[in-house]
Amino acid sequence: MNANEKFIAATAQVDEAAIAPLPNSRKIYVEGSRPDIRVPMREITQSDTPASFGAEPNPPVFVYDCSGPYSDPAAKIDIRSGLPALRQRWIEERGDTEVLPGLSSEYGRIRAADSALDELRFPGLHRAPRRAKPGANVTQMHYARRGIITPEMEYIALRENLNREQYIASLRATGPKGQKMADMMLRQHPGQSFGASLPPVITPEFVRDEVARGRAIIPNNINHPESEPMIIGRNFLVKINANIGNSAVTSSIAEEVDKMTWAIRWGGDTVMDLSTGKNIHETREWIIRNSPVPIGTVPIYQALEKVNGKAEDLSWEIFRDTLIEQAEQGVDYFTIHAGVLLRYVPLTANRMTGIVSRGGSIMAKWCLAHHKESFLYEHFEDICEIMKAYDVAFSLGDGLRPGSIYDANDAAQLGELKTLGELTDIAWRHDVQVMIEGPGHVPLHLIRENMDLQLEQCKEAPFYTLGPLTTDIAPGYDHITSGIGAATIGWYGTAMLCYVTPKEHLGLPNKQDVKEGIITYKLAAHAADLAKGHPGAQIRDNALSKARFEFRWEDQFNLGLDPDKAKEFHDETLPKDSAKVAHFCSMCGPHFCSMKITQDVRDFAAQQGLDEAEALKKGMEVKAVEFVKSGAEVYRNV
Amino acid sequence: MNANEKFIAATAQVDEAAIAPLPNSRKIYVEGSRPDIRVPMREITQSDTPASFGAEPNPPVFVYDCSGPYSDPAAKIDIRSGLPALRQRWIEERGDTEVLPGLSSEYGRIRAADSALDELRFPGLHRAPRRAKPGANVTQMHYARRGIITPEMEYIALRENLNREQYIASLRATGPKGQKMADMMLRQHPGQSFGASLPPVITPEFVRDEVARGRAIIPNNINHPESEPMIIGRNFLVKINANIGNSAVTSSIAEEVDKMTWAIRWGGDTVMDLSTGKNIHETREWIIRNSPVPIGTVPIYQALEKVNGKAEDLSWEIFRDTLIEQAEQGVDYFTIHAGVLLRYVPLTANRMTGIVSRGGSIMAKWCLAHHKESFLYEHFEDICEIMKAYDVAFSLGDGLRPGSIYDANDAAQLGELKTLGELTDIAWRHDVQVMIEGPGHVPLHLIRENMDLQLEQCKEAPFYTLGPLTTDIAPGYDHITSGIGAATIGWYGTAMLCYVTPKEHLGLPNKQDVKEGIITYKLAAHAADLAKGHPGAQIRDNALSKARFEFRWEDQFNLGLDPDKAKEFHDETLPKDSAKVAHFCSMCGPHFCSMKITQDVRDFAAQQGLDEAEALKKGMEVKAVEFVKSGAEVYRNV
Repeated sequence: MNANEKFIAATAQVDEAAIAPLPNSRKIYVEGSRPDIRVPMREITQSDTPASFGAEPNPPVFVYDCSGPYSDPAAKIDIRSGLPALRQRWIEERGDTEVLPGLSSEYGRIRAADSALDELRFPGLHRAPRRAKPGANVTQMHYARRGIITPEMEYIALRENLNREQYIASLRATGPKGQKMADMMLRQHPGQSFGASLPPVITPEFVRDEVARGRAIIPNNINHPESEPMIIGRNFLVKINANIGNSAVTSSIAEEVDKMTWAIRWGGDTVMDLSTGKNIHETREWIIRNSPVPIGTVPIYQALEKVNGKAEDLSWEIFRDTLIEQAEQGVDYFTIHAGVLLRYVPLTANRMTGIVSRGGSIMAKWCLAHHKESFLYEHFEDICEIMKAYDVAFSLGDGLRPGSIYDANDAAQLGELKTLGELTDIAWRHDVQVMIEGPGHVPLHLIRENMDLQLEQCKEAPFYTLGPLTTDIAPGYDHITSGIGAATIGWYGTAMLCYVTPKEHLGLPNKQDVKEGIITYKLAAHAADLAKGHPGAQIRDNALSKARFEFRWEDQFNLGLDPDKAKEFHDETLPKDSAKVAHFCSMCGPHFCSMKITQDVRDFAAQQGLDEAEALKKGMEVKAVEFVKSGAEVYRNV
Repeated sequence: MNANEKFIAATAQVDEAAIAPLPNSRKIYVEGSRPDIRVPMREITQSDTPASFGAEPNPPVFVYDCSGPYSDPAAKIDIRSGLPALRQRWIEERGDTEVLPGLSSEYGRIRAADSALDELRFPGLHRAPRRAKPGANVTQMHYARRGIITPEMEYIALRENLNREQYIASLRATGPKGQKMADMMLRQHPGQSFGASLPPVITPEFVRDEVARGRAIIPNNINHPESEPMIIGRNFLVKINANIGNSAVTSSIAEEVDKMTWAIRWGGDTVMDLSTGKNIHETREWIIRNSPVPIGTVPIYQALEKVNGKAEDLSWEIFRDTLIEQAEQGVDYFTIHAGVLLRYVPLTANRMTGIVSRGGSIMAKWCLAHHKESFLYEHFEDICEIMKAYDVAFSLGDGLRPGSIYDANDAAQLGELKTLGELTDIAWRHDVQVMIEGPGHVPLHLIRENMDLQLEQCKEAPFYTLGPLTTDIAPGYDHITSGIGAATIGWYGTAMLCYVTPKEHLGLPNKQDVKEGIITYKLAAHAADLAKGHPGAQIRDNALSKARFEFRWEDQFNLGLDPDKAKEFHDETLPKDSAKVAHFCSMCGPHFCSMKITQDVRDFAAQQGLDEAEALKKGMEVKAVEFVKSGAEVYRNV
């Protein structure tokens, strides 16, 4: 029995590490206008401020939660059954879809009939595929443009607001100092948003309007009713994507499902399955049925497998069947490299690193071999017809993105971007949702040009970038070289950041790499939210900083993106539990602590009513003596 | 015998990991106008381009080398003896210094006379301290302003140019394609330097002029003749600093020496010894005698230990003695928090995290207790007199830097910055070298204000920033939250970036953390150099990208900042040696590789003379057929 078979056998289980509760965290649901709109969030409970710092309660902080039912102790998790179909009723209620008698894809039917695959197959319920009724268009953009606010849109509005009203109310409820504390905890630097429109509160109508304009997308295929609605757009929280997927060299289905549950635990907003190895179809089924986040794919990868890796043998028919196969499984967005035009290909000949996008190179090879524009470009409207029948969103691929600093912002890349803008117009004529993929490798000072051109040429369709890496000289650390670029381009207006792991350029990421990539991109996305001035973004920073200042160690860990690592690092040098309530840390030791000195200064100023420099100047001489007398000690016993 | 004693005993040895040669790297020396100017660099040898990519030789690349004699197999390393006194003759030749009969510091003499410390003491040669002759000023700034180009300045010019002429000549020598290859490898994006002056070649005169203007500093105390001259200024390569140092809770002398040799192996340009624990004096002696890079300290830390941690008991006399003690040991720059003025202290009372700088909080406490301006401020000219007698540079400390996003760019911080500008003027009147410390925690969009104000108020004196961290929500990953800010502020003009390790806020870094911090900051500094358009900065990126494209795996690893990790990551999924000459990798496997497809496209275009889109359009139809006939395969056997 190989790894896959072992996994599929009756013992197939969720990765325990992916469902262990995070410390002091609780899954809560914010209810919408109807009982089946229940928006998950993670509530992080805090301890009270110690007496020496003023003994005040610190209300729970709510954070965005991508982890789905896995982090809900009340949920019964069995990955052999998949997740509940959360959106099923909303889809049915709209009455514009029909359940098909069977799979529309020929390949899908062949795989379904192949009993040799039984042991690999997802064993849970195989829901019959659903498709738009003839003539219907089931995209969220289509509803939005007709003025309809879907349950998905309402769900998203609640999700983006992060229960902020509740947090504010809790702050104000904390006794007489509540209002002052609320002012402090809610204070935020005005941002620099480069023209984004960031309302203080996200309403369902705002969501609808943004989707209608094409400035945001809601990737949720009607065949992926398990997904929790989320939105990608520059006027919402910056999102991140995690790539998983096997290759011909490594990985099993079990590993890929584990990577997915692991990725969403740490904050992956969407997951792309980039498998290029064996059993792509079956692997994807396992992933989708168990994924509460939208799943993206690059269908040309699977199409290429179907022609045994010979790019020139690809055809529209094979590709079309692949799109339908995947759309009926429930893939939420497709990367389609329709902007790789024949005339751009020779522009890459003098590049340092040529065409590094797999999809881009496949299409380039096809274009050269056939000397015509690709079937992706020629059949773009046909593709739109498929997309709107299932509500699959376009992620228009940047097949000619630079693969090195040398190639950044060159003619091939910028030529393709312009074409992606034209394709956006076409998709929008079909009310099909679109986002645009971006680079890649770009030095810091050339990042802005990418964003500005994308906003202009693609009319604010959401930008979805891979990094970009800001230098090529650090293999093994490309999560960081690219995290720098990601934070920067996120600030400028990119809506979703595709993560890069430490293994980039070197190998396929394992679970540890996935986590490292996710956390790096979560912090980059958050740095971007702060810089844009996204309303409420600073709440978590403020809460964590307050905990840090007050030596509430556990709260500091728990409010962070990775409580486990923070605690582990702390415990390396001060392992005893008592240290976690100590008013000092291993950096300075018990007799020497700037935080404590500051508190002494603050206490003294407060005692004397010395809030202002002016007051200090006037009254200081006498009080200075008192301060020395009181002998304020740096270290207090706790 | 405790850990220290074990270390000092006859067995004290250099950390073997710190001197193991890096793969395919060789220490070379570029000779200057006199034989004792020998500037170290690391030469990275590359393999030839494989036949399938055009079989061309790839000349060695030269990179900046901070590692000193440790990476020179010809050097005899014995940390009990210390390093050779490289600059001794230059210092003596100037004839403006005198060897003192003994230590000028009372504390220094007490420590020297204490036989209980013998077993901790650095056992090598104790050179008698050297000081400027009465009335003399021995700073590099003083020489520069009198038009003197010192050997140090010439050394630095050679160092900053990174043997580029040799590299260019080697490129051009590689056969008929040499010139074309040279054009490619030297091509670089024009940068955006925000007003920096970046000459194509650094001359000794340029170094002199920059030091004379105060735009750059050369930290090299006459009592640290072991140091290899380096420069910190916005018109030179961006530098990084690594902090080491024990605390009352952890670490031994052995560990700190190990951290120093480890930090410079990976690229620390300077090292700060921030010890606050036991035996600070002896620990520092070991570090300085073995350090080829400038050493910085925060003298107030040791002064505080001398008064048993009671800030209010500090006095000018104790501080003065500490400055002299450390200056005669050879500390190259002192962080001095002279900008913490009494009137700024109450401005911190309403902060989220108060005063987080240790030095800042000590001075704030002192000012409040005595109700007067600090002795650092009052005696600033006296301090200048000491600095110029040994050529210790100021690192004017930002004692009021923000410790959270909330506190960024507030009145206390910006008030202090203005004072630092005034102090810069005073130091410059004494021809004392100055750099200015900067924050801290700053959201991305407020970083620029820091740089702009610093350039204006401190008249382009080099800025030396800690990060800044761009969000507070990722304890355990603050090397990354701050690496983002560091790259950004480096681009804007910061001259040196003080690293932050993953342990920031959580504990003292161990060796692994030091390395992680160093590499993160090296890549951030390099990203900044690229963005500024520093001449030649892109050479290493270009060389690495070319190696990557040509599947020269070992070259890709070796040209990176951390060859060990790159190789380890690669080998995790493709462990066999044969894989490292394979024309594919584990991400896509042998049958599916965008790099190979690109090469096929390029070969085809070249065969047909199709460099141009126009040519392609015209001749394509026929040739497309040939392409299919030739059956260009994605995978070639090697």
